Amino acid sequence: MTFSMGRHFKIHVFGESHGECIGVSIEGCPAGLELDYKIIEDELARRRPGLYHTSSSRDETDQFDVKTGVVDGVTTGGPIMMVIQNRDSQSDAYERMKNTPRPGHADFTAFYKYNGFNDYRGGGFFSGRMTAVYVLAGAVAKQILSIRNISVLAHTVQVGNIALEQNPTDDELARCKHSNSTGCIDTNVSRLMEEEILRARSEGDSVGGIVECRVLNLPIGVGEPLFDSIESRISHAMFSIPGVKGIEFGAGFKAASMNGSDHNDQVEYTSNGLVWRSNNAGGILGGLSTGAPIVFRAAFKPTPSISKPQTTIDLAEIKTTELRVTGRHDPCIVPRAVPVVENLTAFVMVDLLMLHDVSISSSVLP
Amino acid sequence: MTFSMGRHFKIHVFGESHGECIGVSIEGCPAGLELDYKIIEDELARRRPGLYHTSSSRDETDQFDVKTGVVDGVTTGGPIMMVIQNRDSQSDAYERMKNTPRPGHADFTAFYKYNGFNDYRGGGFFSGRMTAVYVLAGAVAKQILSIRNISVLAHTVQVGNIALEQNPTDDELARCKHSNSTGCIDTNVSRLMEEEILRARSEGDSVGGIVECRVLNLPIGVGEPLFDSIESRISHAMFSIPGVKGIEFGAGFKAASMNGSDHNDQVEYTSNGLVWRSNNAGGILGGLSTGAPIVFRAAFKPTPSISKPQTTIDLAEIKTTELRVTGRHDPCIVPRAVPVVENLTAFVMVDLLMLHDVSISSSVLP
Amino acid sequence: MTFSMGRHFKIHVFGESHGECIGVSIEGCPAGLELDYKIIEDELARRRPGLYHTSSSRDETDQFDVKTGVVDGVTTGGPIMMVIQNRDSQSDAYERMKNTPRPGHADFTAFYKYNGFNDYRGGGFFSGRMTAVYVLAGAVAKQILSIRNISVLAHTVQVGNIALEQNPTDDELARCKHSNSTGCIDTNVSRLMEEEILRARSEGDSVGGIVECRVLNLPIGVGEPLFDSIESRISHAMFSIPGVKGIEFGAGFKAASMNGSDHNDQVEYTSNGLVWRSNNAGGILGGLSTGAPIVFRAAFKPTPSISKPQTTIDLAEIKTTELRVTGRHDPCIVPRAVPVVENLTAFVMVDLLMLHDVSISSSVLP
Amino acid sequence: MTFSMGRHFKIHVFGESHGECIGVSIEGCPAGLELDYKIIEDELARRRPGLYHTSSSRDETDQFDVKTGVVDGVTTGGPIMMVIQNRDSQSDAYERMKNTPRPGHADFTAFYKYNGFNDYRGGGFFSGRMTAVYVLAGAVAKQILSIRNISVLAHTVQVGNIALEQNPTDDELARCKHSNSTGCIDTNVSRLMEEEILRARSEGDSVGGIVECRVLNLPIGVGEPLFDSIESRISHAMFSIPGVKGIEFGAGFKAASMNGSDHNDQVEYTSNGLVWRSNNAGGILGGLSTGAPIVFRAAFKPTPSISKPQTTIDLAEIKTTELRVTGRHDPCIVPRAVPVVENLTAFVMVDLLMLHDVSISSSVLP
Repeated sequence: MTFSMGRHFKIHVFGESHGECIGVSIEGCPAGLELDYKIIEDELARRRPGLYHTSSSRDETDQFDVKTGVVDGVTTGGPIMMVIQNRDSQSDAYERMKNTPRPGHADFTAFYKYNGFNDYRGGGFFSGRMTAVYVLAGAVAKQILSIRNISVLAHTVQVGNIALEQNPTDDELARCKHSNSTGCIDTNVSRLMEEEILRARSEGDSVGGIVECRVLNLPIGVGEPLFDSIESRISHAMFSIPGVKGIEFGAGFKAASMNGSDHNDQVEYTSNGLVWRSNNAGGILGGLSTGAPIVFRAAFKPTPSISKPQTTIDLAEIKTTELRVTGRHDPCIVPRAVPVVENLTAFVMVDLLMLHDVSISSSVLP
Repeated sequence: MTFSMGRHFKIHVFGESHGECIGVSIEGCPAGLELDYKIIEDELARRRPGLYHTSSSRDETDQFDVKTGVVDGVTTGGPIMMVIQNRDSQSDAYERMKNTPRPGHADFTAFYKYNGFNDYRGGGFFSGRMTAVYVLAGAVAKQILSIRNISVLAHTVQVGNIALEQNPTDDELARCKHSNSTGCIDTNVSRLMEEEILRARSEGDSVGGIVECRVLNLPIGVGEPLFDSIESRISHAMFSIPGVKGIEFGAGFKAASMNGSDHNDQVEYTSNGLVWRSNNAGGILGGLSTGAPIVFRAAFKPTPSISKPQTTIDLAEIKTTELRVTGRHDPCIVPRAVPVVENLTAFVMVDLLMLHDVSISSSVLP
Repeated sequence: MTFSMGRHFKIHVFGESHGECIGVSIEGCPAGLELDYKIIEDELARRRPGLYHTSSSRDETDQFDVKTGVVDGVTTGGPIMMVIQNRDSQSDAYERMKNTPRPGHADFTAFYKYNGFNDYRGGGFFSGRMTAVYVLAGAVAKQILSIRNISVLAHTVQVGNIALEQNPTDDELARCKHSNSTGCIDTNVSRLMEEEILRARSEGDSVGGIVECRVLNLPIGVGEPLFDSIESRISHAMFSIPGVKGIEFGAGFKAASMNGSDHNDQVEYTSNGLVWRSNNAGGILGGLSTGAPIVFRAAFKPTPSISKPQTTIDLAEIKTTELRVTGRHDPCIVPRAVPVVENLTAFVMVDLLMLHDVSISSSVLP
Repeated sequence: MTFSMGRHFKIHVFGESHGECIGVSIEGCPAGLELDYKIIEDELARRRPGLYHTSSSRDETDQFDVKTGVVDGVTTGGPIMMVIQNRDSQSDAYERMKNTPRPGHADFTAFYKYNGFNDYRGGGFFSGRMTAVYVLAGAVAKQILSIRNISVLAHTVQVGNIALEQNPTDDELARCKHSNSTGCIDTNVSRLMEEEILRARSEGDSVGGIVECRVLNLPIGVGEPLFDSIESRISHAMFSIPGVKGIEFGAGFKAASMNGSDHNDQVEYTSNGLVWRSNNAGGILGGLSTGAPIVFRAAFKPTPSISKPQTTIDLAEIKTTELRVTGRHDPCIVPRAVPVVENLTAFVMVDLLMLHDVSISSSVLP
């Protein structure tokens, strides 16, 4: 039961999909930061259901309240507790499915773990709805990162069988942010992705996809050996997003079939300072940042909630049965996952930066 | 600087590739366990250099000493501190490369992180040699798992362009363990993998690969939401192995192009109890074990140390230069990584089991 | 910035004295516990200002809301987030004292730590008001302890110069609980304590005191060596209560002048099982519980807010100045500290019990 | 089972009194520190048995080896693992007492906690011998503190019934350090303390005492609210020293009978900057340092090992029996505890300083 993450910049998460609220308390935010609530609002808006015509029709306005840690818009050094009320939760559908775990969901495992006392309504705290508070925390983190000119940019590179073949430059990525309903920076590819999603929905089915994320302008040496490498910390965080089933950095799985002479990135001094000729390492060597962009991809499974009939069990009557999941669901969560990946990564980066600051300890040694 | 991992069953790691020794102290091992040193020895032997004719010729006998926490072969409840002396370390080659970071290694990033005070000899604590102590810890963990009849089995599924197409059953995997020099269970494929490795070596180059790992007989419900899911904890651990650049669970990246109706695993009651019809989830739903085998794959990049000339920089003279890495290196680390993946996974599993035991808290509630 | 405490049974605290609310999120509470809100209410009532005619007149009804982690009165295994709204906060008095740190308060140190961005209104999160949420957490903990028949009992043993000479038996303590306005179990002594408090108030002054606490029926062996001993964990928690300046276990400071032959407690087998002839150790040997009651005393300094004029500095004008603290304050916090000590101790005990359960690991070893 | 302490500057401790060795691994020491081994040696010498004619005759030379984390005398940023071999351990005496727990020792509680698998030889890891590695860690910490001109000074203020009445100035304390066999700075009082110890020994008995410790030149604001206050962290550490049963800061228990107007320390601006007129707070307000010296006192119980006959139980035969503890023991551990208190405090201070550095986060905000 570990609803907390981070060492210096920490989040503690609470709430459940169909309870009164969800929320997060952020520890370790420096005092004196002027919090821009508009930035938080905008990030939250990016993941809101109902924004894209392809997504779920649950209507959550997702207004957040900052309850503590801020006086006159400025942080005090205390925990920043933020809450989002659940307004449009319809639990009736779930009551009916209480004893029939939905395939692909945590209903089955949660039932066993909590001896049947788990909150079955909409998955309780296993729900993707919890990722809204990851965004809250990340939107605070981004404001700390921007002081150091560090940015985090995620985009959709695959939905079902439609993949973005082009590898956008960092500039293109920064420019195109938020432009399409799918989170893909290429208008044409985005349209194909939409079609893929709509096709799945029309079939009572769903599709998965892949989100790529980059961190730009991170200084060299961030990350803590052995067990708080950038890869360890980012992957740990990403697998806390429901639906993520794979992650790779830089060349990733392709590296398995490469030769060392092709994979090794080579660095040189140029008139612009240190320049990396390639970035197969995804900006990370020995778990530490190289100065090149951090690049990783997270694979999402298709949304488990589908209206097609599926086999499952009846936990009360101890028999095999059939289930047709009703309720409001995204046929593809990838577009809405883009801001979640981006903001959760921002959170991890602030924590690692703080650890690095102590690690280099300029203040300790003369 | 976080050389510790785990919550209950914890490891604290120390040492460096070319210093006096490497070692680990294990916290949280229950008192009263009769430690079988032969099992530890055998696991360690599996990753020893020089075992396969394809691997590095650094000759380390890797004898370990158990220094504390065990009296008359039985654990006392105190930290189990184990050490491996470094005997065959040749630091001369590294002295020469001190100012020219080897491409693909942590030399570059470590130099910046530690202001030039990093131990440059063989990568210091960034060396793959540190994984020997992961095996020590895992070999203790395995003895705890075996009491509960849980087993962890890893094998090589890809080396360079040679992939194992067959998907062995759990039984086949258990039977074939340790049979080939590459860690691949199929004799013919293993021979092709060896050829791939030898080809790379003859070219002064290296290749990467993929290791698959399974955990069998884990009870339902292991893993702690939200931030200590099985995926989060395993991926965190795997990226602590030098060279790992990607990880996926169950269908993994393939899930991105699947439909929900294909990806969702369906469970039913049979005369044999609960049976899963498929295992695309890799045995994990909501971060918790489903009772099906945990299945994941870790992608390794090609060994960065190659004898082909490469471009790098001279940190002392601030100029671009060329480097030819000498010394003894594996042209492919994957075969030796198999026991590392397996044992480090065993370590994570014991920690998660202990957390689960508290979580279900049969002892707290009536 | 560490607003969290505990390993398994954890609290994360947020809020500030004169902000919107204070609250706590409890992690690690087992699923399936029927929470009795009346118990929480009663514990909270014990520390409420205005209850004793000797205490502060700030009128806080201290109604709490359980926001998450409970469905139909039963815990789900998720974080239990509880909030108390601040209703009767009058910040005006503090605005006036913004630049003149109140002697004996954290105003001075907080100003420096947070570069002047600290919440100066009523001490912000340094306020004794935060202890209300310790009580919330402890009142949940008590319900877990009661399942195991463990109880925690605190009482006032000194106020100013009035000390309880009698050493009540555990039975007397259990019987007399909550009986007097001062928290002292002896009616006559309690009356003298009240007089001491009223005298101080009439002089515009304040007094300190001592609270004793006992934990009954703890099994043998609870506590984790080396750094999570019962003493370490209880003292760590107690010094998180504003105003505590000393703690001692069993014979405590008196042990310094004792001989070993007097101090050592001797145990024997009797027809009633193991019996300790004395309890100078306060129920703790080697940091672990002996089976005898855990006994400790915490010393509280006099309330720093007094209406007598005091010297302090003006941080804005950089000069020495004089301050007369107004506002509503307890002339003695000890009576209200009794339930805080008791409940915070209950919280620590549940965490240590959970650690012990893993430690003995009956479930891991055969 | 938590043999680790600290957040940034962390120690992990291993070993046992009568095993092969005891040791510590220090995590988080900045790279680039030139370690002065002579300082470590000197600190270790201060707690060595056999140094004072009043103490135990176990002859341990206590030579330490630095095994990892240091290259050419300079720290690399990796864990600094240090070991002390056990040479003069005589386990025979303990074999005989295996089933008869020594009164006042952890033998009884450890037997129950570890189901009889505890290392009974000399108390295993419950032994006071473990404090030698606290000194190792602290002697490294002191070298970091001295860069910032911070010093930690402990001295004996009471042995049995002999108390130092005088309150030495910080200068006197610094000057007199290490001067007497008892750790008391006053020669005459020290002689009386020696007599007290010898008297106890001649009677087959032992005495307790009190150690005072001060931290000088700590900047304002060190300590982390709410749960990592200076008091919480120091007390947590002190109760990890076997024999400590009480701790108080500043006026401590005396504060209980004081009025607020006497207890509150008042600060003023003088030509020498900020000056505190008194230090009843022990240099701590709200858990944070005030700039005045940190002052605390730790009470030690009399050594439990005495040669007088005592009642105990026979765990094997389940009966009450009598025990006369033989072996070599200090009749008073206080003189040897002085460097332990001092060095362990130094360790805590470095960790808190590092947390504070991140907390003020000058590097994060502009």
